[in-house]
Amino acid sequence: MSNISVEEFFDKVLTVRLTPDRQALDIIDQTLLPGTIRRISLNTKEEIWEAIKKLRVRGAPAIGVSAAYGMAVLASRYQTDDFETFAKLFKADKDYLATSRPTAVNLFWALDRMESTLMASRGKSIPEIREILYNEADRIQAEDVQISRSIGEIGFGLLKDLKKDGKPVGIETHCNAGTLATAKYGTATAPMYIALEHGWKGTDMHVYCDETRPLLQGARLTSFEVASAGITTTVQCDNMASSLMRAGKIDIIFVGCDRVARNGDFANKIGTSGLAIIAKHYGIPFYVCAPSSTIDMNTPSGDQIPIEMRDPDEVTEMWYKERMAPKDVNVYNPAFDVTDHSLITGMITEKGLCTAPYDEAFRRIGL
Amino acid sequence: MSNISVEEFFDKVLTVRLTPDRQALDIIDQTLLPGTIRRISLNTKEEIWEAIKKLRVRGAPAIGVSAAYGMAVLASRYQTDDFETFAKLFKADKDYLATSRPTAVNLFWALDRMESTLMASRGKSIPEIREILYNEADRIQAEDVQISRSIGEIGFGLLKDLKKDGKPVGIETHCNAGTLATAKYGTATAPMYIALEHGWKGTDMHVYCDETRPLLQGARLTSFEVASAGITTTVQCDNMASSLMRAGKIDIIFVGCDRVARNGDFANKIGTSGLAIIAKHYGIPFYVCAPSSTIDMNTPSGDQIPIEMRDPDEVTEMWYKERMAPKDVNVYNPAFDVTDHSLITGMITEKGLCTAPYDEAFRRIGL
Repeated sequence: MSNISVEEFFDKVLTVRLTPDRQALDIIDQTLLPGTIRRISLNTKEEIWEAIKKLRVRGAPAIGVSAAYGMAVLASRYQTDDFETFAKLFKADKDYLATSRPTAVNLFWALDRMESTLMASRGKSIPEIREILYNEADRIQAEDVQISRSIGEIGFGLLKDLKKDGKPVGIETHCNAGTLATAKYGTATAPMYIALEHGWKGTDMHVYCDETRPLLQGARLTSFEVASAGITTTVQCDNMASSLMRAGKIDIIFVGCDRVARNGDFANKIGTSGLAIIAKHYGIPFYVCAPSSTIDMNTPSGDQIPIEMRDPDEVTEMWYKERMAPKDVNVYNPAFDVTDHSLITGMITEKGLCTAPYDEAFRRIGL
Repeated sequence: MSNISVEEFFDKVLTVRLTPDRQALDIIDQTLLPGTIRRISLNTKEEIWEAIKKLRVRGAPAIGVSAAYGMAVLASRYQTDDFETFAKLFKADKDYLATSRPTAVNLFWALDRMESTLMASRGKSIPEIREILYNEADRIQAEDVQISRSIGEIGFGLLKDLKKDGKPVGIETHCNAGTLATAKYGTATAPMYIALEHGWKGTDMHVYCDETRPLLQGARLTSFEVASAGITTTVQCDNMASSLMRAGKIDIIFVGCDRVARNGDFANKIGTSGLAIIAKHYGIPFYVCAPSSTIDMNTPSGDQIPIEMRDPDEVTEMWYKERMAPKDVNVYNPAFDVTDHSLITGMITEKGLCTAPYDEAFRRIGL
């Protein structure tokens, strides 16, 4: 894989795109990764619904883009010249797709945005409206690509500062805030892919992927995509981060985030806060890659961010063929944790790099 | 399980003991845990060898005790009245058992001690020698029990100081430094079992067991034994420690150790050093339960402790039925890590509680 170009890489693993005839979605089936790399076409609304439901496509931005393209494809087939009939068919398909993942905010956001676009097009011809919907889906995709690209350029600036003596820059990341979760560059992975676009070789970086228990997105997805891009990649258990840092292998850490409070505290995949504490102990810079849409100025601090508790089976099952903990034991399984803003070096948004005090920095970028 | 007495608990899960007729070893088969609790008898040298080899019995002290009892049992059957013949048979069995786990220092130590006892008994009658060997094995077992009990009494003193308002004391531990690794009380678990012997109820404590990737000794063994003793028990992924501490659930941490340097740095199961850093960040006391035999005054610091790198498959296989990371990715899989002495609150040996500066404290207890 090591001689793949970054264009070939994205051609192979791009999460979601239209087929050339614009009559289907072309996705990489993430349920088969990392064992099998298979792109599949989603032609019907049932196939699109099932792909979102079964996590064949996952990650908030990627789900949003899939829903938008899905609506454009479905709307291209409505056999009517009457706007009201068209809108009724559209609404039915939109409501159907919205049931695929009832907690996915980006799904509803993208579906609503497509519907608003449709309703604002009243008076235009049906062929024109079909084109407008395709364009809006393209725009949703392009906006996500641009956000990631901007984050990646800022992160690449940090990587350049760390590159010396021909030694690869050691980068640690947690969970999957990558290509596979977004329209193209990912967030935490954007600095790496932008570095490739700027001519860095895969051997100029060494990316250490936390496996990320319990669901192993780091081992299954991040290490797959980063290695597929030809970047030197290592997987380790989450509890090996301190050992890696003590051995001097990590120069910088990039993580994604799910929600940022006004003071810079943020929620991200469980394990992030421990990683930040350990990085601070070893004096290793720790950056949060945060699209400004994840920053919630109405939440004063991390204490107000609710944390989802998930099924104990995620921790105790899925091992060998047997349960790997006693039947009657309690399990603690939060999906996310909150990292205190005092532990991080900076927060990279598409509008610029923010550092403490975060509330002021967030206001400076217009939030 | 919650109404079990501590005596019933040890009767059920005691790692190794002689059968009442002293003609076999009676062990709990740890390869079946936590799904099945089954005690098995080891009657022949082949059965003893296989049980050590296949990790049916594991943990350095437990292996030593098994080897000692094994030699006593085997020696009771030698059909000779001649010392030289007896010693030759003994040597052959000893050499055979020594091949079961070629890196287990405690195995060789116990076998050598049994052989020295035999050689010092030259001149005594064979029936007397048989009794001397049983007694020596009993002594090896009793010494380990006493070391753990002493550590447990000191640790229990710390628990008593933390008990207030009828709230259970939150205890976190890593890996398995428990009953299942030793002759009776374990090291990191000794404070908990001693607390039960002093009349604490299982609900007076809440033990949080790190699952301990990659081999899950915490999920499989520690949570099993602690829950079997009727203590409130929770399992969590290693990366959830910071979340637990931030939520105020952890009052104290006990871990075991494999080797301690003169300055108090110590090697223990991978993940220990990260846990110590996180505990220090939250101001939570962190104690190492260390038999004085693990303290090596000839090793100046943790930097001189070599760390075993283990098979990548431990990290990437054993999931569902499929490999859970790409085939060509690197894997970082150290068995242990080194924790800096500056991160710990104290080190509990059977000879007393040691605090910084550790070299002086170690000398004060006679090392």
